[in-house]
Amino acid sequence: MTTREDCARRDRGDPLAALREQFVMPDGVIYLDGNSLGPLPGTAAARVQQVVRDEWGVGLIGSWNTAGWIDLPQRVGDKIARLVGAGAGELLVADSTSVNLYKVLCAALELARTDAPARNVILSERHNFPTDVYIAESVARERGLELRLVDAGELAARLDGSVAVLLLTHVNYRDGRMHSMPELNRAAHAAGALAVWDLAHSAGAVPIDLSGGGLAGAAADFAVGCGYKYLNGGPGAPAFVWAHPARTARMDALSLGQPLSGWLGHAAPFDFAPEYRPASGVARFACGTPPIVSLAALECGVDTVLAAQTLGGMPALREKSLALTDLCIELVDARCGGMGLALRTPRDPALRGSQVSYSREEGAYAIMQALISRGVIGDFRAPDVLRFGFAPLYTRHVDVWDAVEHLRQVLENGEWRESRFGQRSAVT
Amino acid sequence: MTTREDCARRDRGDPLAALREQFVMPDGVIYLDGNSLGPLPGTAAARVQQVVRDEWGVGLIGSWNTAGWIDLPQRVGDKIARLVGAGAGELLVADSTSVNLYKVLCAALELARTDAPARNVILSERHNFPTDVYIAESVARERGLELRLVDAGELAARLDGSVAVLLLTHVNYRDGRMHSMPELNRAAHAAGALAVWDLAHSAGAVPIDLSGGGLAGAAADFAVGCGYKYLNGGPGAPAFVWAHPARTARMDALSLGQPLSGWLGHAAPFDFAPEYRPASGVARFACGTPPIVSLAALECGVDTVLAAQTLGGMPALREKSLALTDLCIELVDARCGGMGLALRTPRDPALRGSQVSYSREEGAYAIMQALISRGVIGDFRAPDVLRFGFAPLYTRHVDVWDAVEHLRQVLENGEWRESRFGQRSAVT
Repeated sequence: MTTREDCARRDRGDPLAALREQFVMPDGVIYLDGNSLGPLPGTAAARVQQVVRDEWGVGLIGSWNTAGWIDLPQRVGDKIARLVGAGAGELLVADSTSVNLYKVLCAALELARTDAPARNVILSERHNFPTDVYIAESVARERGLELRLVDAGELAARLDGSVAVLLLTHVNYRDGRMHSMPELNRAAHAAGALAVWDLAHSAGAVPIDLSGGGLAGAAADFAVGCGYKYLNGGPGAPAFVWAHPARTARMDALSLGQPLSGWLGHAAPFDFAPEYRPASGVARFACGTPPIVSLAALECGVDTVLAAQTLGGMPALREKSLALTDLCIELVDARCGGMGLALRTPRDPALRGSQVSYSREEGAYAIMQALISRGVIGDFRAPDVLRFGFAPLYTRHVDVWDAVEHLRQVLENGEWRESRFGQRSAVT
Repeated sequence: MTTREDCARRDRGDPLAALREQFVMPDGVIYLDGNSLGPLPGTAAARVQQVVRDEWGVGLIGSWNTAGWIDLPQRVGDKIARLVGAGAGELLVADSTSVNLYKVLCAALELARTDAPARNVILSERHNFPTDVYIAESVARERGLELRLVDAGELAARLDGSVAVLLLTHVNYRDGRMHSMPELNRAAHAAGALAVWDLAHSAGAVPIDLSGGGLAGAAADFAVGCGYKYLNGGPGAPAFVWAHPARTARMDALSLGQPLSGWLGHAAPFDFAPEYRPASGVARFACGTPPIVSLAALECGVDTVLAAQTLGGMPALREKSLALTDLCIELVDARCGGMGLALRTPRDPALRGSQVSYSREEGAYAIMQALISRGVIGDFRAPDVLRFGFAPLYTRHVDVWDAVEHLRQVLENGEWRESRFGQRSAVT
């Protein structure tokens, strides 16, 4: 069985180990919740101070030009693009994941139904993240369309000629199951549908090939993603939106915008023209003025992931991520057997994101609280899931070993039954 | 004629003068662009550092509870509510002004047309801020409704039985003209329509009585507003959304949400329920996760306006604002006569917001650039408008005098004709 010393040896041999030093990590914490909120990059505090004191305080309104605020959504977007297999100018930082999802889902439907008006179905997964389902529900209701929710295994079979758009989250927030994006893009396109992806739990954690330039060669159509999880952009960091250049070219040709036609998505926002004329390319997905202070912090977070580019980039991060999640599964199997934990995450690495989840019939919430009180920060997801995120940028093999040991102790000694762990908090 | 010494004397007698000390203001700057971006509150840098270093860096994900991040949109919303005549729990910070406008316009239309399905018109003003017109265009097109754009003077006459929603900006961004909100609310309601207001250029600058509790006693129905202008919330600060409690009660009764049905507007977001169920009250207008760092800075900005509450509050700020804009008009009349400036802002104080605008046939852009190079920061608005914002929190009477003197010199000596002032920049 793998020992703690084995883990320490793996850390010593880890070519990515130094990347952890980019972060401020509190003492005594094993942070396995970077898939909810990435930790603080060491550069962020100074950069945010610069934005506040110098750019806002001294540069005032002029900083939109002189400090480049106006270019920030595209500049940070271009950086994120490099992490998700997209080209420069194709990806923009804007709004929240939910708001961006609304924009691209509406745009995808309008495109798909311009070419095939009879297609009236949005196909998605029953266990997709709720916000994705809520937004799709809303868009479907507004347009009199059908939202067809099916189990993951049924997706390919239900991609029939009625489907206009396939809407999926790449890695499931609860169980960490990852879809094969190239396969589903191919299946969607073969069925005549467009593929829209939510990358909240995958951008910065697993290799993604949005443009289809890689070996699998199957491009997506639209995507959105989150800035504050594996991109380490800070609480509520702005999100991003990507559109395949062939889709935006077609939107250009048809003069299509998207419903959230705010002034910053206009072709010439500072002309203050009375009619809306969408900007070309992904710029049409901008809406209102972006929150610059939070956006500056996001750039620091994205830079922490880009720092891996010279060390093998996303494939190297993926290799480490799988080593960490494999290790977690192996150690829980070996050390927490018979303790009521049921693995929810696929054992097949090809189907796994960068997290490991367990369900437990009794006490899942309290067990996570007991772990947190020991400094092992994962999270609980209703109704019964213990979720552990293993961000390869800063998680060590010994962290996995120690976390599993704490989990074993909490289960064995029953401390989670203490009343102080029994209250469910507002945010978990 | 008013002398500079008269102005200095007025400043010495100004009961609000000390409020200026709340801000960090660069030396040598006369800042007359707080209606584009308010200046930096002295508290903001430290507060943002606290959020970044302590709450994010140390508290990590737990700060959603322990640092109260989850309550921040409502907490700051309650503070803004006090500035715009709204009740606690009625106003929420969220997203951008444009995105919020989309939400409330859709909600208002759904409410109005549930009761009167034949009403098919959104009535607005031709010279409304472009983003308002663009969003209304989009919403109208999606629903097959008519967007009826008329001149300000025609609004009351065009409020007929076909109008579902009257959508207006309280103070015009270009000429500073202010609508009478109580009168137009009454007219809208008399015509059976709902009234939706954009408070971008009025919140924090002029008294507003959204709930109709004041003497005029005419409530609005929905409103949105901007955090980074007179509320001094920082570049791209999150915006706000307000709904009259009677409107949200009716939405509750009809189980109506709004189209941007993101998870944070759900009645129980952390249940991760598969069906969307809107939160009650204004909370249904939340969508995705808010940008906490920018939101924390916004709270500092709002606090600078609340600091006036013990000194007479919004009425006292309004009195000073009118004294400043009156002074500007008087001094330009007296000192810049025959120099080609045409006053665009109403001379009647009742029709004026907190800015003064002039148009000039030739050179408006270059004239503003020449002023900025002298440290007098106003802004240019296409095609020919020089705009000067007079935020009563930090603008002094001597600032007005000095600004007009600079304007006079620039016009008299023709320095604006120098080629360095001739290029129009991306953001103005």
